[in-house]
Amino acid sequence: MIKTPTSSFDFSAEQLAKALAANDIAATSKVFHPLGTAEALEQLERLNTFDRALAYRTLPKDRAMEVFERLDASLQADLVAGLQEADVAEVFAAMSPDDRVALLDELPASVANRLILGLTEKERALTSTVLGYPQGAVGRYMSPEFVITHPGLSAGQTLERVRKQLDDAESVYTILVTDTGRHLVGVVSLRDVLRAEPAERVQDIMKKPISVGATLDAEEAARYCADAKVLVLPIVDAEERLVGILTVDDALRILEDAESEDAARSGGTEPLRRPYLATPVRAIVRARVVWLLVLALGATLTVQVIGAFEATLEAQVVLSLFIPLLIGTGGNTGNQAATTITRALALGDVRPRDVFKVFVREVRVGAMLGLLLGSLGFAIASLAFTVPIGLVIGLTLLGVCTMAASIGGLMPLLGKAVRADPAVFSNPFISTFVDAAGLIIYFLIATSVLGL
Amino acid sequence: MIKTPTSSFDFSAEQLAKALAANDIAATSKVFHPLGTAEALEQLERLNTFDRALAYRTLPKDRAMEVFERLDASLQADLVAGLQEADVAEVFAAMSPDDRVALLDELPASVANRLILGLTEKERALTSTVLGYPQGAVGRYMSPEFVITHPGLSAGQTLERVRKQLDDAESVYTILVTDTGRHLVGVVSLRDVLRAEPAERVQDIMKKPISVGATLDAEEAARYCADAKVLVLPIVDAEERLVGILTVDDALRILEDAESEDAARSGGTEPLRRPYLATPVRAIVRARVVWLLVLALGATLTVQVIGAFEATLEAQVVLSLFIPLLIGTGGNTGNQAATTITRALALGDVRPRDVFKVFVREVRVGAMLGLLLGSLGFAIASLAFTVPIGLVIGLTLLGVCTMAASIGGLMPLLGKAVRADPAVFSNPFISTFVDAAGLIIYFLIATSVLGL
Repeated sequence: MIKTPTSSFDFSAEQLAKALAANDIAATSKVFHPLGTAEALEQLERLNTFDRALAYRTLPKDRAMEVFERLDASLQADLVAGLQEADVAEVFAAMSPDDRVALLDELPASVANRLILGLTEKERALTSTVLGYPQGAVGRYMSPEFVITHPGLSAGQTLERVRKQLDDAESVYTILVTDTGRHLVGVVSLRDVLRAEPAERVQDIMKKPISVGATLDAEEAARYCADAKVLVLPIVDAEERLVGILTVDDALRILEDAESEDAARSGGTEPLRRPYLATPVRAIVRARVVWLLVLALGATLTVQVIGAFEATLEAQVVLSLFIPLLIGTGGNTGNQAATTITRALALGDVRPRDVFKVFVREVRVGAMLGLLLGSLGFAIASLAFTVPIGLVIGLTLLGVCTMAASIGGLMPLLGKAVRADPAVFSNPFISTFVDAAGLIIYFLIATSVLGL
Repeated sequence: MIKTPTSSFDFSAEQLAKALAANDIAATSKVFHPLGTAEALEQLERLNTFDRALAYRTLPKDRAMEVFERLDASLQADLVAGLQEADVAEVFAAMSPDDRVALLDELPASVANRLILGLTEKERALTSTVLGYPQGAVGRYMSPEFVITHPGLSAGQTLERVRKQLDDAESVYTILVTDTGRHLVGVVSLRDVLRAEPAERVQDIMKKPISVGATLDAEEAARYCADAKVLVLPIVDAEERLVGILTVDDALRILEDAESEDAARSGGTEPLRRPYLATPVRAIVRARVVWLLVLALGATLTVQVIGAFEATLEAQVVLSLFIPLLIGTGGNTGNQAATTITRALALGDVRPRDVFKVFVREVRVGAMLGLLLGSLGFAIASLAFTVPIGLVIGLTLLGVCTMAASIGGLMPLLGKAVRADPAVFSNPFISTFVDAAGLIIYFLIATSVLGL
């Protein structure tokens, strides 16, 4: 009964790989068929497109449905290409409107249109509501199926409404209270409905609602849902009429994708948007090459800076020994600051208008770090080389750390202010500006201390 | 009614800052008192310890309780120090056992002990259950208060059980089905209980349970809860007896903290564990300095490598121009690979046993990136300098990219295998090993191509 995610299923995984390599459907079925939903999912996410379709088709029908619904939309789209049209239509009809829209976004337009036309009128209408919001907006992730009650109704009447929608509504545990104009005026939990006397009126047990607009950025809405610790976040339109709900499990998924994106971007790569082992090598190269080129082109600035000081270097080749260490330390300090501020922005701990506060803090932090590292660098380099060299290294570390921390801290805020992804915006700046500026600091200090 | 998190409350924030700076309790109260829970929380997280205690005390009692419960445990602990003992005891008694344990972990032992002794016997027992699990284990985050039913009971009887525990249980929407030995045999949602005929038996409507052991790493358990899309993840002990539940909102919080930790570590800094603006500058320096020192000491390896090739550099000072660009590109490539694999590990897309698959993929990705960048580097450097220099740069980029991607991809797996944090483990290796190895590749290619 205990399912520890790590211990996993090595045995069946190996057998599965063998069966798939041999294109042996019977053997694949024998290994894959008995797997539970979670295990089947894990295995499917590790296969290539062809093997995945083959393995998926060996699942019994009801399990197949469950597995399909929980797959990433990109992998769902892959599967659709390899399935019978009738099977696809059936799975599609059974999906909830928000999941359906996520899949539609991944499909070729012709396939998407055919699938939409195959829906019942009601499901088509629900899907259109969600489809009507721009990509990235929380409206795209909301469910338009929820339970409504009114302030004047009783707890008993509300419970009856819940019972009637047990099969349809995305969540029945949070009931939304609206007025006659469909404006959200409160929320009441099923727990409170059960606790109340049947005759008690909703207006006496409902709570003040929190809600967000349907065009709000999905990540912000999800973060808000998480911070508010609610199971359901109501979504309203521009006229404050209730249009849908974001459930906490959808919020979790949105946040997970957002975190993957942030992690990728802060490592200087585009997010893969599908599991690593299910991504073709060419797609991984594509996700990385643009960034790598941008950063390398930015780094030609350092070639020019060093070129400008070539005479200094020729006079004192020993100075070249410290180049990687000094610009590395600058880059690390800048990254530390940028990482901290990027995360604080994502969590809402820092706002763009805090730019001055952040700057002052980071100058102080950078100067303190620079003093510590600079003293140490002075001591070591003085012993290993000469005192003047030690002085150059120590002063450079102080200058570089202060500069890098303050620039690194400001970049994500500047990125946010111009509506770019803070992590994307910070990376090239820190890698090029901080490197080049660090070298200039180094050579200026060196020429003046060493009298070159 | 629409609460867009970004628009926020600039006006009151400014007034609040003024009132607090003047130590004016009446004015503080006037600004702070009317704020909703979410707004009060946001403001409190941006104040320093002293101002936070002052502002908090102006909240009305019921709001204060709500705000306290949703604050970070570290900030709760700060507040406790500034409050009356009787007030603390009251808040503490009202918290749920898992939140109580999170706070206890932040408090001095003497305060913690006094608070535990002040609890009722029942609450003390519940708290001890949670406290009994090691830090970092999911047992520490679970709630020991949940609704139980049995396979032989009816849906009607189960609904009665739910009604009786409306005030106590952490969640009443997922009911856990146990046998007489308290072993978990199923789960049934309140939705299914409401849908069933009152006489229907639980064993006919319950679903196969998923569960995890109480000593499992909290992050893994939370990720599992998210992947399974369940509102409640049952927690069992070594004998597979039910001991608690992890609710999805607690899972969200665990994941958010884990993401913050991963983000910090991948940026080469320790996580702050409290909101940025509420962290003293000294604490930020502490979070960064150790990493910076470790990385700087590792970088002394590059000083030695360049020192070993000092004669080569003296003969061709032009070679020093490309040092930052080449090791920068190596570092970037290594970081891209490490970031991708670290995230794939966190999401369970890659397991340590996939090490060979990952290595082969990253060698291919690195070689393709190296070919692209190398060709470009050859062309540009041949034009700007000489063809032999172009050849050195092109070949070095090819070698460095291939080496960096494969090392960068392996490091997180190696880190995971030795049970270290993959991000922590990867960072110093990439920053030192890849830099030093890149320089060696560079100078070896340079000496042989240029015939030095």
